[in-house]
Amino acid sequence: MIDLRSDTVTRPDDRMREASANAEVGDDVYREDPTVNELEERAAEIVGTEAALYVPTGTMGNQIAVRTHTERGQEVLCERESHVVKWELGGMAQLSGLQVRTVEGDDRGVVSPERVRESYVAEDLHRPGTGLLTLENTHNSKGGAAIEVEKIRETAETAHGLDVPVHLDGARVFNAAAALGVEAREIVAPVDSVMFCLSKGLGAPVGSMLAGSQEFVDRARRNRKLLGGGMRQAGIIAAPGALALENRHRLTDDHENAHRLAAGLDGIEGLSVLEPETNIVLVDCEGTGHTAEEFLAAVESTGVLGVAFGEYVVRFCTHWDVDDGDVEEAISAVDRAL
Amino acid sequence: MIDLRSDTVTRPDDRMREASANAEVGDDVYREDPTVNELEERAAEIVGTEAALYVPTGTMGNQIAVRTHTERGQEVLCERESHVVKWELGGMAQLSGLQVRTVEGDDRGVVSPERVRESYVAEDLHRPGTGLLTLENTHNSKGGAAIEVEKIRETAETAHGLDVPVHLDGARVFNAAAALGVEAREIVAPVDSVMFCLSKGLGAPVGSMLAGSQEFVDRARRNRKLLGGGMRQAGIIAAPGALALENRHRLTDDHENAHRLAAGLDGIEGLSVLEPETNIVLVDCEGTGHTAEEFLAAVESTGVLGVAFGEYVVRFCTHWDVDDGDVEEAISAVDRAL
Amino acid sequence: MIDLRSDTVTRPDDRMREASANAEVGDDVYREDPTVNELEERAAEIVGTEAALYVPTGTMGNQIAVRTHTERGQEVLCERESHVVKWELGGMAQLSGLQVRTVEGDDRGVVSPERVRESYVAEDLHRPGTGLLTLENTHNSKGGAAIEVEKIRETAETAHGLDVPVHLDGARVFNAAAALGVEAREIVAPVDSVMFCLSKGLGAPVGSMLAGSQEFVDRARRNRKLLGGGMRQAGIIAAPGALALENRHRLTDDHENAHRLAAGLDGIEGLSVLEPETNIVLVDCEGTGHTAEEFLAAVESTGVLGVAFGEYVVRFCTHWDVDDGDVEEAISAVDRAL
Amino acid sequence: MIDLRSDTVTRPDDRMREASANAEVGDDVYREDPTVNELEERAAEIVGTEAALYVPTGTMGNQIAVRTHTERGQEVLCERESHVVKWELGGMAQLSGLQVRTVEGDDRGVVSPERVRESYVAEDLHRPGTGLLTLENTHNSKGGAAIEVEKIRETAETAHGLDVPVHLDGARVFNAAAALGVEAREIVAPVDSVMFCLSKGLGAPVGSMLAGSQEFVDRARRNRKLLGGGMRQAGIIAAPGALALENRHRLTDDHENAHRLAAGLDGIEGLSVLEPETNIVLVDCEGTGHTAEEFLAAVESTGVLGVAFGEYVVRFCTHWDVDDGDVEEAISAVDRAL
Repeated sequence: MIDLRSDTVTRPDDRMREASANAEVGDDVYREDPTVNELEERAAEIVGTEAALYVPTGTMGNQIAVRTHTERGQEVLCERESHVVKWELGGMAQLSGLQVRTVEGDDRGVVSPERVRESYVAEDLHRPGTGLLTLENTHNSKGGAAIEVEKIRETAETAHGLDVPVHLDGARVFNAAAALGVEAREIVAPVDSVMFCLSKGLGAPVGSMLAGSQEFVDRARRNRKLLGGGMRQAGIIAAPGALALENRHRLTDDHENAHRLAAGLDGIEGLSVLEPETNIVLVDCEGTGHTAEEFLAAVESTGVLGVAFGEYVVRFCTHWDVDDGDVEEAISAVDRAL
Repeated sequence: MIDLRSDTVTRPDDRMREASANAEVGDDVYREDPTVNELEERAAEIVGTEAALYVPTGTMGNQIAVRTHTERGQEVLCERESHVVKWELGGMAQLSGLQVRTVEGDDRGVVSPERVRESYVAEDLHRPGTGLLTLENTHNSKGGAAIEVEKIRETAETAHGLDVPVHLDGARVFNAAAALGVEAREIVAPVDSVMFCLSKGLGAPVGSMLAGSQEFVDRARRNRKLLGGGMRQAGIIAAPGALALENRHRLTDDHENAHRLAAGLDGIEGLSVLEPETNIVLVDCEGTGHTAEEFLAAVESTGVLGVAFGEYVVRFCTHWDVDDGDVEEAISAVDRAL
Repeated sequence: MIDLRSDTVTRPDDRMREASANAEVGDDVYREDPTVNELEERAAEIVGTEAALYVPTGTMGNQIAVRTHTERGQEVLCERESHVVKWELGGMAQLSGLQVRTVEGDDRGVVSPERVRESYVAEDLHRPGTGLLTLENTHNSKGGAAIEVEKIRETAETAHGLDVPVHLDGARVFNAAAALGVEAREIVAPVDSVMFCLSKGLGAPVGSMLAGSQEFVDRARRNRKLLGGGMRQAGIIAAPGALALENRHRLTDDHENAHRLAAGLDGIEGLSVLEPETNIVLVDCEGTGHTAEEFLAAVESTGVLGVAFGEYVVRFCTHWDVDDGDVEEAISAVDRAL
Repeated sequence: MIDLRSDTVTRPDDRMREASANAEVGDDVYREDPTVNELEERAAEIVGTEAALYVPTGTMGNQIAVRTHTERGQEVLCERESHVVKWELGGMAQLSGLQVRTVEGDDRGVVSPERVRESYVAEDLHRPGTGLLTLENTHNSKGGAAIEVEKIRETAETAHGLDVPVHLDGARVFNAAAALGVEAREIVAPVDSVMFCLSKGLGAPVGSMLAGSQEFVDRARRNRKLLGGGMRQAGIIAAPGALALENRHRLTDDHENAHRLAAGLDGIEGLSVLEPETNIVLVDCEGTGHTAEEFLAAVESTGVLGVAFGEYVVRFCTHWDVDDGDVEEAISAVDRAL
């Protein structure tokens, strides 16, 4: 099976496993796990923030962030198709009582300054007041679009001008950096906090980071405890996480594989492929007369896995367990299936 | 002052005051207030539901409805500009933990069946599941648009086909009925619950009704208690409320006044007026070079009150404390002000 | 029927009805209802606070108070048997996400300074932090105990020493004042906010007041809107409410009736009666061999209504619709029933 | 340093580290991590339930359990001093809107059937209704009391008789089993779900289990996702967790050490020690004239760590990183410090 469902399926390599086995550990709730402490320092350094916090999942990182930035009863502005709105079980409302106000991004998920200005709500007798803007980069639902630093900056500055902080769901922020040819810290510079995953393209088995100012991270640590994310000898998973961080520059390989995959699939009768920006390939299979579910069943039988992203849209994701040969084989398997 | 800020500013007339003074009352928490009981029966009869519940405000009626229809953790689909999203302090999230997913209505606030289908979310491991669709008629933010029975029906049937119940914010449902030339019960027939206000155009001093099936209203009664809406000898305000119900057919007068006002204002240099469908007149004053706030300050000085609905948009509302003469005077006062 | 279920069942008298009929009204959401404004000023004056807010029910007043005093995620200390814990549907947790930590009062519901000190929780990594202490006076579940000013003061000062504000559920605070021979403002002086009901012993048809500092009331007004308590021409019910305020000194009549009732019932074989402090009479009927429900059914058949307060405890409540003769008749009816 | 602060500070041994390094892994959100799957099956088998779920922390396990068992708006009965009330940041109210109603356990934290019966609340117009009873075994705040199977059963049966499910916070349930000389499944048999920690006395670096019926665990899995506990290649930490499970019978060593420590400390002037039932030793130092904080500072300087559990109470915890020699040394170090 060539597993292109998600870059979350990557398995740790031997170096990571060895790092787990040899990690120096302590009780991280007491902040005494040296491996976690090192990971947090290194992660903050890489994204250019004062501090960072290790969390078990990206969803928890996002949920902690929205809770830490806001006060009871505010609204959060989010791009309509963003992960935090679509795939996190309504946590902002369920866990923190925050009303979501979705804003329309463009076809790459870019939220314009105008949209922020018009969606902003000042607190008054009838209105909650906007407490936070979330952005996402790369934008998953828009095919992994890598949003340019300048666009992030413009939008964030508009929010800041309205006294609204900005959280970046950067689950794949290193894919964005690699695609844009910048350092992740340049993407992060305009925002107030960022969450990024170690367990997606970077290959760590478990964990994400939430980074921001020291004061933000101190308060986030308490919200991590509330949500049940205060683990103990977490160095065992933080150690491979630290190695994963150093994988960030090899994401260009995944992007090349995605381009190769896209080109190959686009040549197949009935498939229409969105030119990928990073490691996500969205394929429209309506031209084959089959739904996404039918298409996926067919390609599974020839050895390829993907996920449905709409009635006729399928997502394939390249990652470090997929090499050039796998891509060639995947293209040919899809061809055979149809 | 000619007060066109809202149809909530109407004052009860002598008959209503007399009804208050003479109301037979009891403790409505024990369901022993005969005047409230009569009002609830009459209201249900008028909108064609099994039962109805008297609530202190329209906001409470809507908030009870969304809570009663849903389970913990679901999503609610609402038109983007609807009252329940914009003007109720984020109550769905704050009070009931429900994530709002806004859908785009057309320029009259009509939510199409297509939009419901594409915004619907089936419950799964990552997604909350759609628990309710709310509609609004007349649609306040869209200038009091009176949405046609057929459009309500199509959209509600689509929701029902997805096992999603529908609540109608009918704060001004009798304005819709009057404008469409139908009975309110025809508008209500396709939905599962409706909230309508006695204290807007109908002229009651206080109160709204929440109507639906007997089973729905029984559970809503408990949520009313939770939100602090279980009043005691409420017959004192239910009595004028019952008279207000019988005012529903005179709303056509307000609509004629709104048309007259719109026509008059549209003739004034720099003003652009949306043709009203009911009793709400939206005036764009950008052509005068003044913002809504500046425009309102100017007309206040010549004796007319309205409210800002956007940077350059002003809302004037006709109601039963405003007669033909007031309308003529208001037009001339606005003219003088500019 | 002699209705001794609750002092909420009182019906407005002719003066109150006339006041409704003649009330000058406006839209209270715009703060333009002169009758409401006057009531709020007068109420604040009587309890000695800077400001007060008219709310539809006591439950809403309490729920607004706890929400206004606290921040997201704090704990509230409440006496174990208090109304806000037992009879308000868990609103503190449901509506505001606040954990309740109950403290044991003594057999009159008095919460000692020691109990506050030992139940207080400082905010830390694992603990929510105590955000509010609520007290209740008179204490309903403890038979209407009128808690002495000095006791309120000691406990409130202890809380203040821990930076914890104090809200008083004073639904029947005027009963406490009457029983203690003090002015209500003396009871209220040590606390930060008080809710009291106009629709219990004072006889108004609808409504309660929430009083405190101007800054507190300003923020409470917004939370009233959130909960759906922002009524319009509320002067219609505020007018009898203002008259009700002036009834506060006649509550001694109810207390005398309660004593008379208690003495009479205590003479009946099988009944054991808690000596009343105010207008609430708790009767233990275990000695009759009947449960509270059976006892109530029996006395209903001879013309008296009460409510069950435990498996063998019945509450009778005197109020201004009950006079001396009713008390005599009630005693004799209970006697006949057994 | 002899670290007696908590049994959470244990470090994984070489076998556990090797298990991490060699674990077969997959994406556990897709349920494809064989090591997690095995751990879940084995854990369920050991406690005698149909299924189990791996969660990052005990706090998350408890919070998922209360959310999964209840409906929006219910109450939860919890022993007053239980972990879920005291040390989880008010999560039941904050995350799930549940009102806590604390019940008094006896001096070992045992909740009697009588207390359950009298604290039970039937759902009605004013009352939330009891949705869950939580118990704790061993009971941390009561010095690690190991509550007997028969007592758990009696109380659970009472709850079940009232249609109230029971969740057991069994963070240290294997300590209870070891102390009582029974299998954990006997303790778990009377309840509906249990959470137990792999990262306390059992020595795993990270993780806890939530066990119950298949249907319960299926729904719990979704709530785990909501709280951000859906990890990916979690086999890396599940593998040492599986080994930890097999450590459960060696907990008797910790208990012997605790007895030895208690006996030694009790011989020191000014210290009064609660006879331990499991691995927790509560020491009252009031007789020394020092507060818990002062006492802890003194013993830290001679090489022993503990935590404050009250103004004059200190908790020492034995665990698998503490052997006989450490215990002797700890006693002597405390003696020197005083």
